[in-house]
Amino acid sequence: MAARKKTILDTIHLPDDLRGLREDDLPQLAKELRKELIEIVSETGGHLGAGLGVVELTIALHYVFNTPKDKLIWDVGHQAYPHKILTGRRQRMRSLRKKGGLSGFTKRAESLYDPFGAAHASTSLSAGLGMAVARDLRLAKDPDADKSHVVCVIGDGAMSGGMAYEAMNNAGSMKSRLIVILNDNDMSIAPPVGAMSAYLARLISSRAYRGFRGFWRRVFERFPDAIRKRVRRAEEYARGFFTGGTLFEELGFYYTGPLDGHNLKHLLPVLRNVRDVGDGPVLVHVVTKKGKGYPPAEASDDKYHGVGSFNVATGAKKPDKANAPSYTSVFADTLIKLAERDSSIVAITAAMPSGTGLDKFAARFPSRAFDVGIAEQHGVTFAAGLAAEGFKPFAAIYATFLQRAYDQIVHDVAIQRLAVRFAIDRAGLVGADGATHAGAYDLSMLLPLPGFVVMAASDEAELARMVATAAAIEDAPSAFRYPRGSGEGCAVPEDPEPLEIGRGRIIREGSDVAILSFGGRLGEALLAAEDLGGRGVSVSVADARFGKPLDEDLVGRLARGHSCLLTIEEGASGGFGAHVGLCLSRLGLLGRVRFGAMHLPDRFLDQASPREMYEEAGLVSGDIVGRVLLELGVKGGVGGAASRRGHLFHG
Amino acid sequence: MAARKKTILDTIHLPDDLRGLREDDLPQLAKELRKELIEIVSETGGHLGAGLGVVELTIALHYVFNTPKDKLIWDVGHQAYPHKILTGRRQRMRSLRKKGGLSGFTKRAESLYDPFGAAHASTSLSAGLGMAVARDLRLAKDPDADKSHVVCVIGDGAMSGGMAYEAMNNAGSMKSRLIVILNDNDMSIAPPVGAMSAYLARLISSRAYRGFRGFWRRVFERFPDAIRKRVRRAEEYARGFFTGGTLFEELGFYYTGPLDGHNLKHLLPVLRNVRDVGDGPVLVHVVTKKGKGYPPAEASDDKYHGVGSFNVATGAKKPDKANAPSYTSVFADTLIKLAERDSSIVAITAAMPSGTGLDKFAARFPSRAFDVGIAEQHGVTFAAGLAAEGFKPFAAIYATFLQRAYDQIVHDVAIQRLAVRFAIDRAGLVGADGATHAGAYDLSMLLPLPGFVVMAASDEAELARMVATAAAIEDAPSAFRYPRGSGEGCAVPEDPEPLEIGRGRIIREGSDVAILSFGGRLGEALLAAEDLGGRGVSVSVADARFGKPLDEDLVGRLARGHSCLLTIEEGASGGFGAHVGLCLSRLGLLGRVRFGAMHLPDRFLDQASPREMYEEAGLVSGDIVGRVLLELGVKGGVGGAASRRGHLFHG
Repeated sequence: MAARKKTILDTIHLPDDLRGLREDDLPQLAKELRKELIEIVSETGGHLGAGLGVVELTIALHYVFNTPKDKLIWDVGHQAYPHKILTGRRQRMRSLRKKGGLSGFTKRAESLYDPFGAAHASTSLSAGLGMAVARDLRLAKDPDADKSHVVCVIGDGAMSGGMAYEAMNNAGSMKSRLIVILNDNDMSIAPPVGAMSAYLARLISSRAYRGFRGFWRRVFERFPDAIRKRVRRAEEYARGFFTGGTLFEELGFYYTGPLDGHNLKHLLPVLRNVRDVGDGPVLVHVVTKKGKGYPPAEASDDKYHGVGSFNVATGAKKPDKANAPSYTSVFADTLIKLAERDSSIVAITAAMPSGTGLDKFAARFPSRAFDVGIAEQHGVTFAAGLAAEGFKPFAAIYATFLQRAYDQIVHDVAIQRLAVRFAIDRAGLVGADGATHAGAYDLSMLLPLPGFVVMAASDEAELARMVATAAAIEDAPSAFRYPRGSGEGCAVPEDPEPLEIGRGRIIREGSDVAILSFGGRLGEALLAAEDLGGRGVSVSVADARFGKPLDEDLVGRLARGHSCLLTIEEGASGGFGAHVGLCLSRLGLLGRVRFGAMHLPDRFLDQASPREMYEEAGLVSGDIVGRVLLELGVKGGVGGAASRRGHLFHG
Repeated sequence: MAARKKTILDTIHLPDDLRGLREDDLPQLAKELRKELIEIVSETGGHLGAGLGVVELTIALHYVFNTPKDKLIWDVGHQAYPHKILTGRRQRMRSLRKKGGLSGFTKRAESLYDPFGAAHASTSLSAGLGMAVARDLRLAKDPDADKSHVVCVIGDGAMSGGMAYEAMNNAGSMKSRLIVILNDNDMSIAPPVGAMSAYLARLISSRAYRGFRGFWRRVFERFPDAIRKRVRRAEEYARGFFTGGTLFEELGFYYTGPLDGHNLKHLLPVLRNVRDVGDGPVLVHVVTKKGKGYPPAEASDDKYHGVGSFNVATGAKKPDKANAPSYTSVFADTLIKLAERDSSIVAITAAMPSGTGLDKFAARFPSRAFDVGIAEQHGVTFAAGLAAEGFKPFAAIYATFLQRAYDQIVHDVAIQRLAVRFAIDRAGLVGADGATHAGAYDLSMLLPLPGFVVMAASDEAELARMVATAAAIEDAPSAFRYPRGSGEGCAVPEDPEPLEIGRGRIIREGSDVAILSFGGRLGEALLAAEDLGGRGVSVSVADARFGKPLDEDLVGRLARGHSCLLTIEEGASGGFGAHVGLCLSRLGLLGRVRFGAMHLPDRFLDQASPREMYEEAGLVSGDIVGRVLLELGVKGGVGGAASRRGHLFHG
C-alpha cells in the first residue's frame, strides 16, 4: 500500500491533541472525520446519520471542554462514533458492534471518555444532574476539589421522553451548573412527532440564528471580570423583565440559541461562554442536519439512521442476505389484514414506526396508527384508554423498551384487565446492539401478572396466528413476543386462525426426554432432538405457545411420560422455565421427572451476531444436547439412555 | 334517632339530580358535601386534604358535564371521595378502604362514573387522550355517534411525572378535544418541588385571576352561533400574535386560567365554555387549597393528605396502636446514623419524603437529600449519576412505584453495575390502598438482573443490618425490601453490622420439613413450625436474607436434610421461590426433596387490612401448616410425618 499523506485526524490520538490544534484547522479536521466515519460505517454498518450530524459539535465540545475531566454524556450514544474516533478508539472502529469489538453506544467499561453509558433514550440529563450534584457536594466540602463541567448532548427526539422532562423539572429548580446541548435535527429516527418538536421548529423560525449574539459574547469574554459580572446581571435583569421566555427558561434553564451546529465559528464562542460564565442549568439549542455531508444520507428518508454496510460512492446499501420475510413484516402484514376486516383495530408505536413495521400500517390506515414519540409510558396507557372505549389497540414495542412502561402495564392495563395487545418485537438476544437492547426481561415482567395472556412465536406462521389470537382476546390483556430478524422461511397462513388459548403443541414424539420450548429456540430444540436420537436418546419436543395461561395438561403429560423435562426460552431466569417449575411443584410432579430450565445466563452479554450471542448464552442445539446428557447422567455423551430409564425415574 | 332535616345532599343520588339543582343551591351543597366528607374520613381514615380541595370543582364538573356519558378521569383518584359521594356511593362511604368496601381510589369495577381507575400519579392525560381519540374515530365513521367529552383532573404534583409530559407532548400535536383541569394546590403530598411548580406559582402571580374573563364569556355564550364563531377566530388570531404563551400553549394546549377553584361563579362559566366552544386540547388552570374548609387540615403541614381516624371537633388524630417503631423509621434512623460517619451517603426520594422517612434524613443533612418530584425514572438515573461519581446513593422508593423505573434499573444501574442502593419500602401487601399499591413485583423484577444484591428483612433489626450491608457494597447495585407498618418489636442494633453477602441463617432446627422464608413471613413460618411440632412434624425454619446471591449452600443443606422444602415470600410468582426452584434443579436436588413455593396468588387482591389480605393470599401460618400437611400427604392434617418419610422421598 502506498504511503498515505498524513491528515490532521492522524495526529489526534486523544482530545488533548485536538485541543492543541489551531482553531483554523478544525474545519479541515471535520472534513476528515466525516470522511472517516462514512468509510467505517460503510464497512461495519451501524448508526451513520446521527454521527454525521454532530461532527462539528463533537469537535467543538472536545476542543472547548477538558474531557475526560469534564464529563461529556451523549444521550442514546448512537451519535458518538465521531466521539469514539477522537477519544483513542480510532483503530478499533472497524470492530464496531462486532463480537469482542467496540460497542455501538457509549459504554463506561470501554473508555474514560464515556462517563455514563447509554443506548436507550432520554437518560443523559438525569445522569448528568447526578454528576453535577456530586461535583457540587465535593466542592462544598473542599473548595479546592475539581471543578469539572458536566455536558449532556440530547436530541430533540429524546426530549419527547418523559424522563428528560422529569430531569429538566428537577434541574431547573436546583442551582447546579449543568450544560445541556439540545441537538435539534428535527429527526430522531423517524420524523419527529409531538408538540415539543413543533415548538422547537417555531423557536427556530421565530428567532434569528444567534451568530450575532455569539460574536457579541466573544467580545464580552475578553472584558475584565468585574465588568463581565455587571453586564451579566444587567442581562439577567432584562431576561426577568420579559414574562414569556422559552419553555426551557420557564423550566428554570438559561436558554441560548438556536445556533448553526455545523458552524464552528458559532459553536465555539457560545460553548466557551457557557463553560466560563454563569451558574445553574443552561440549555444550548443547536440545530444540525442528520446525515450532514453525505448526500445519499441527506437524501434518504431515515437519514441513514441505522444501516448495514453500503457502497460509499453510491450509498447503495448491500443487500440483506435473508430470504425469509422478517418477523416484523409478518406482524405488520398480518395486522393490516386483520384491520381490513375489523375497524376497531388500532396500532401504537413509541417512535419506532419502521422498526416495528407500523409504518406500513400507518400508510394503509393513517387515522388508526399513532406514533406517540419516545414515550412508552404514555403509549401504553394511551392504548389502555382506547381499550377502555372498546377499541383493539396493538402496542408494538421492542422487548427492551417495554421495561419503560412496566408500571403502566401493571397499573393501567393488568389491574383493570383492559385488552391491550402487546406486540413485543426484538424479544431475546438482538445482536449488534448488545446488552442494552437484549429483550431479556419481558417474560419475567409479564408472566406474574394476573389475567395476562402471554405468547411467544416459534416461527413466522405462529406469529401470524398469535396476532389473530390477540385480536380475538377481548376480555384480557395479551402479549406475543417474537425475535429480531428474518423468519424461519415457513409459509405464513393467508387467513391465520386464532390459537386455542393456553394450549401448546407437541412437535415430535419421543419417550426418554421432553424439551418444552417457548419461542424462538424451537429449531434448536429439534436439532438437538435429532442429534440425541443418534445417540439413542428418544426426545419429544413441544412448543408451549403460551407462557400464560400455561398448558398444565401438556406439562403434566410431558413430566409423566419422560424421565427428564427441559424447558428452553429466549429470556432471563424467573420467566417461562421458572413458572413451569412452579407448575410441576403444584402438580406434585417434581419428584417424578428430572426438571431443568435453560434460559439466558446470569450475566450481561456483549454484542455479537445473534447466533454468537446465543452460543455465548449456552442456548444452541449443542448446549441442549449437553444438558440432556448431563441430566441423564451420561458421561462423555455416548450411549443409549433408555436402558438407564429405571435409574432416571429416581425410583 | 331524631329525624334529621333533609339536606340538599340528601336529594342527590346521582349526578343527574345534581344537574337538576339551581346554580344558587350549589354553594350550600358544597358546604354539606365538605361536612359529610370530614365526618366520613374522621371515621374511616384515608385521604382527606385532597378531597376537601376539590369539593367545588367536583360539583362544577358534574353540573356542567353529562357524566357518565362524558368521561371524568381523576388522576391518582385519592381526591375522588366527593366524586364518590355524588355518584351513588354515599351510603357505602364508611366502608372506604376496608375489606369488601369501596376503594380509596377510582376504580372501573366500582362505578360507571369511574371510566378509568387510578392510584399511581400522572396517568390520566394518557388514558384521557386514548378515550378522546376513540371518540373521534367513532365520530369519523359515524357523525351521529356520541360526542362525549373527556375531562382529566390532574394535580400540580402529578404534573412533575414524565408520563404527564409525554401525554401533553402527544396531545398537543393532535386535534382531539381533551379537557385537562390542572388542579394547582401547590402541594401534592409533600410541598412541591421542581421547576414546573415554581413556574405555576409565577403564572398565578403574574396573571390576574380571570374572573373578568369568565364574566365576559358568560355573556359571549349567549350570542348567536355565527357571531360566536367570528369572535372566537378573532381571539385565536390575537393569541397567535403574542410569541411567548404559557408553557402549555407552547405545547399546543389552549390555556385558560388561573381560576379560583373554590368559586363556583368563576368555575361554571369557564367549564361551560370549554365544553361548548373550541377543539384541540385545552388546559384549565384551577387554583385550590388542599384541606380547604377544615381548619385543622389547612393548618397541618401535610394538609391531612392521608390520615387515620380523628376527632372532627379538634382534628386530633387518634393514636396509632403500634408500639414498635415502623420499618420506615428504622430505615431512616439507621441511614442517618451511617451518614454521620460516611459523608458519601446521599438519599433520594420521588416525592415521598415523609412516607419513606427521608424527611428526617433531609432535616439532618439538607444538602445530601434529594426530592426529585414524582419522577421515579429520573430519580433512579440521577442516583446512578451520583454513584458513578463515587457517592453512595440510597434511593428510597415504595415497591409499587419501583415499577415506574424498571428500565432505569436495568439500563442505567445494573448493566453499568453502579452501586445504587434501593430501599424498597411497602414491600408485599399494604392493606387499605389495595391492589394498585401492592408491592408484588419488585422481586421478579430484580432477581433476574445480573450482579444485583437483593435482600428482604424479616424484622427491623435485620433491616438495620441490611441498610449497613447496602452501604458497604461498593461494587454492585443492591436492594433491600421491607414491609409497610410497624416492626416486630425486636431490639434494633445501635451499630448494625453488615451481613455476610449471600448467607442466610437457620432460625430453628427440625428434621422433617424445612421452611425457607424470604422477608416478612418469617414470624408466620415460626408459628406454623410450632403448630406442626404439635402434630409430630419436626420443622426447620430458615431466613434466606438474600434472594440474590442465593445461599446455595443453605438451600442444598435444607433440601438434603428434609423430605420437604417450602419457600415463602411476600411477592408474586417468578420471584424468590421460583429462583430457589431453579437452584434446586441446578443442584440436581429436585428429585430428592418435595419442593413447594408459597407466594402471592395469581389474582389482584382488593384492599383490606394487611393481615386480612395475607389471609386472602393464603400466606399466614395456618396456610403454611395446611401446605406442609398436603405436601406430606397427610389427609385431615393429624399424625406424625416422620414415619412416612420413606414415602415422601419418592423412593
